[in-house]
Amino acid sequence: MTQQVDNKMENKIINIGVIGAGGRMGRMLIEAVQDNPQTKLSAAIERQGSSLVGADAGEVAAVGLLNVKIVDDLTAVINDIDVLVDFSLPAATEQNMQICAEHKVAMVIGTTGFNEQQEQALAAASKKIAIVYAGNYSTGVNLSLKLLEMAAKAFGTDADVEIIEAHHKHKIDAPSGTAYMMAEAVAQARGQNLKDVVVYGREGQTGARETGTIGIHAIRGGEIVGDHTVMFIADGEVVEITHRARERMTFAAGAIRATTWIVQQEAGQYDMQDVLGLNK
Amino acid sequence: MTQQVDNKMENKIINIGVIGAGGRMGRMLIEAVQDNPQTKLSAAIERQGSSLVGADAGEVAAVGLLNVKIVDDLTAVINDIDVLVDFSLPAATEQNMQICAEHKVAMVIGTTGFNEQQEQALAAASKKIAIVYAGNYSTGVNLSLKLLEMAAKAFGTDADVEIIEAHHKHKIDAPSGTAYMMAEAVAQARGQNLKDVVVYGREGQTGARETGTIGIHAIRGGEIVGDHTVMFIADGEVVEITHRARERMTFAAGAIRATTWIVQQEAGQYDMQDVLGLNK
Amino acid sequence: MTQQVDNKMENKIINIGVIGAGGRMGRMLIEAVQDNPQTKLSAAIERQGSSLVGADAGEVAAVGLLNVKIVDDLTAVINDIDVLVDFSLPAATEQNMQICAEHKVAMVIGTTGFNEQQEQALAAASKKIAIVYAGNYSTGVNLSLKLLEMAAKAFGTDADVEIIEAHHKHKIDAPSGTAYMMAEAVAQARGQNLKDVVVYGREGQTGARETGTIGIHAIRGGEIVGDHTVMFIADGEVVEITHRARERMTFAAGAIRATTWIVQQEAGQYDMQDVLGLNK
Amino acid sequence: MTQQVDNKMENKIINIGVIGAGGRMGRMLIEAVQDNPQTKLSAAIERQGSSLVGADAGEVAAVGLLNVKIVDDLTAVINDIDVLVDFSLPAATEQNMQICAEHKVAMVIGTTGFNEQQEQALAAASKKIAIVYAGNYSTGVNLSLKLLEMAAKAFGTDADVEIIEAHHKHKIDAPSGTAYMMAEAVAQARGQNLKDVVVYGREGQTGARETGTIGIHAIRGGEIVGDHTVMFIADGEVVEITHRARERMTFAAGAIRATTWIVQQEAGQYDMQDVLGLNK
Repeated sequence: MTQQVDNKMENKIINIGVIGAGGRMGRMLIEAVQDNPQTKLSAAIERQGSSLVGADAGEVAAVGLLNVKIVDDLTAVINDIDVLVDFSLPAATEQNMQICAEHKVAMVIGTTGFNEQQEQALAAASKKIAIVYAGNYSTGVNLSLKLLEMAAKAFGTDADVEIIEAHHKHKIDAPSGTAYMMAEAVAQARGQNLKDVVVYGREGQTGARETGTIGIHAIRGGEIVGDHTVMFIADGEVVEITHRARERMTFAAGAIRATTWIVQQEAGQYDMQDVLGLNK
Repeated sequence: MTQQVDNKMENKIINIGVIGAGGRMGRMLIEAVQDNPQTKLSAAIERQGSSLVGADAGEVAAVGLLNVKIVDDLTAVINDIDVLVDFSLPAATEQNMQICAEHKVAMVIGTTGFNEQQEQALAAASKKIAIVYAGNYSTGVNLSLKLLEMAAKAFGTDADVEIIEAHHKHKIDAPSGTAYMMAEAVAQARGQNLKDVVVYGREGQTGARETGTIGIHAIRGGEIVGDHTVMFIADGEVVEITHRARERMTFAAGAIRATTWIVQQEAGQYDMQDVLGLNK
Repeated sequence: MTQQVDNKMENKIINIGVIGAGGRMGRMLIEAVQDNPQTKLSAAIERQGSSLVGADAGEVAAVGLLNVKIVDDLTAVINDIDVLVDFSLPAATEQNMQICAEHKVAMVIGTTGFNEQQEQALAAASKKIAIVYAGNYSTGVNLSLKLLEMAAKAFGTDADVEIIEAHHKHKIDAPSGTAYMMAEAVAQARGQNLKDVVVYGREGQTGARETGTIGIHAIRGGEIVGDHTVMFIADGEVVEITHRARERMTFAAGAIRATTWIVQQEAGQYDMQDVLGLNK
Repeated sequence: MTQQVDNKMENKIINIGVIGAGGRMGRMLIEAVQDNPQTKLSAAIERQGSSLVGADAGEVAAVGLLNVKIVDDLTAVINDIDVLVDFSLPAATEQNMQICAEHKVAMVIGTTGFNEQQEQALAAASKKIAIVYAGNYSTGVNLSLKLLEMAAKAFGTDADVEIIEAHHKHKIDAPSGTAYMMAEAVAQARGQNLKDVVVYGREGQTGARETGTIGIHAIRGGEIVGDHTVMFIADGEVVEITHRARERMTFAAGAIRATTWIVQQEAGQYDMQDVLGLNK
């Protein structure tokens, strides 16, 4: 029975709604929806007062006319969609989760920076609907997190861990969220609390390196999309795991790939490693 | 009961015999035995006719007098040892396996290039004694092989795989055995036969890259101990797994670490991933 | 006096003609003309029979209406331009050089693969007009060539040189033209003939590395725009010079930068290192 | 005439004295003297009270009996040597410079951390004798400094510069002296004062990268001898210059190479780039 349902879902075109359709990430999500043969853009939402309300979402995203007008009210289009994709801001996402939970619409969330109340709203919503909530939607980053976990377990604190990330000159914070996710993966695998062991940069009379610490170094320059290298430095050998994102589209494509998986799941909170089958 | 035996073994000093004690690898193995608090050099063997027969193995290895004279006959010292460590040549190792099997002495074998008959001798011996047989004894290389397997499964043939290895200018063959092990790990995880998909170097009108192939590139220069990088190149992102050996001692230390594990195992053939617990 | 002329030239907007305006490179050149405040698109040429003849060059390049119609005859527009930018095919470029020489219009040429007759046509044309002829127009690549020359002179054959280049999976030849330029820079600085010392890939019983050889290795995968690394491997240390192109636009922008320099030069053949002042 | 003198000098074996002969660097210098066919150890000096005074310098350095007893008074052996090699402490080197200046003995100095008075002593001594004074004696590092200068001039502040250095876990300060030398080379070439533009590590709300700054990041782990990478990150491309030291011996060998050059020079202060001919 389940198998039959699955097959039906796989053949069915999935109707996608995109929050923040006029923003940089929103436009890429719309392009990724177009690129994925299993998905169709059925709603595009912007904040109230945006000058793009009423414009065609496809033309805004430069993928051609899609006959989907950008609206400023999610409830007006909630019945047209199977999954809502939300890469916006915590307060907006909190409201959207309530609306989706009421209308039994699955979600793929890429919003970061939730406070405690918003985390609770997420937990509450995921009792009613299926939600993918991930800090990063690329296959490579999620794979890398699993590789890091395995490497950290094999070496323990016999290897010194140093993380180097590089991003474009416009980025206003450091280290990157992905670098933190990687550091967290190493710390957890070694039974450490990241806050206790993280070191940012070194200058002056630092003393010898303390065993078990994790160094994080943030390179900034040019238009680098996002590179991350984690070094495991043992006495006679070094293992490095590197991820290079060459196009931001890879994140959008991963999020849309997640929509085709989440529509088949029961209510609950999932991450991208669940989507990729890396947690089996 | 088993636990008690294990504890006894862990506290017991393990008596090691080293084949080819006067060679480059033999000397490093003796140094690694000295560095490991659980092991003791109890026998050192060289080929008949070596001018080093009769010399002190410790002095030959430049680790100080050990009062272990180098002999040219394994049977003369077989009862003094718990594990024989053999990094020599296939024909010699074949004989040594027979002697160890008769006397119930475990083995750690690093000899490469077995023919079919020698493979069969290994299979026969491992019915009577516990043998670790590995092409590479470093923690990092064996970890890397597991990481590669995981990455190859996650990407499938969506990512193009290219392997770059670098070794010193004196190396007379290419690619390295470790590069082949890495390529094999990728091919197996993708259900491929390596011979069908491997490509060595590219020159001239090659045509577009064929999906599913694995490129291997051998850098040679200076005194590089051994670097290996495996690239998984997907359309919008790249994952790289790199291993750098900085000292050959890392291989000797791994082999001696294997001796402390193999003495606790039942008869059978094991590899370094078993020793490191990566196959659980 | 010269200085005055220079200043006048610098303030003047330079009228650019682009050959192959509808092709991939042509569109990028038009975008680069638009991005450079000193240049203006004044002519766009396509081959006879192209369906784009008559279309607006700006709309074809997706940079907005420029009111420059694509034509199929260079002579019809030759008097409207100061510099012709030609990244096309040898036979077409040969004809274009004749037309430009007659009309005293400077050229920036990126066409590759000239035969002997075409090389002679280039030599003849550059007696009448100023021509920049370069295999690669990026600042970084041309800088790298000078760095390689300096490094090769400092190390001589004490360092083993290995070149690793990586390009997208669609590339049909290997190694890249840039890799050859780099190898040539090293060989010339060491007084070698590249053909005598180049090695492509290594497999099997290769023997020890021969002193003075230059290895070139071509990685292919995904959508890599173009990475090149040259290693100088000495006994106790390694120097590496790496160039990574992140966008093809960097080549187009360099070519347009060259147009603003070439209009100020006397007749002659120049390369990109002349443009960048690296040959002083 | 000069040519004749040069030839005589080149054929003559150069008598070397080594300060701190029993220390880690002193032993490597003695090994390097032995490895260089043009040099001979003729004096070995230790501090007063060292237990090694009276021992054979060769045996202490593990290169075999050299029949050179370690002494604790430079004046006792100053007439036996052509060049004094001094990698010790500022106060000791200050005294040694006076003695060498009096006896017209050339010097190769690797001592770091001179205060103003010691800098003046150096200036005074180099009016009487020829002195090589360098922070780093490797060919690769000195070459890299010249490459950095050229790259910094070509890119100006169009490229963002980031320096990543990696050293072993025992190092107690950061960044490395070599990283500072590299940053200084870039800053000088761009007409900047390093202090005004250097950034160490990034954490928190940093804001966008400021044009013209130079980031320095210090990796620490395992037994890494010393790696340095300088990235020039332009908008569409990146140039990287990397130096990897694989053995500390490379510094000792460079210092001994400098002795064979300095004996042919007139009084004055020179650096390693003079020795290598990179300043021509």
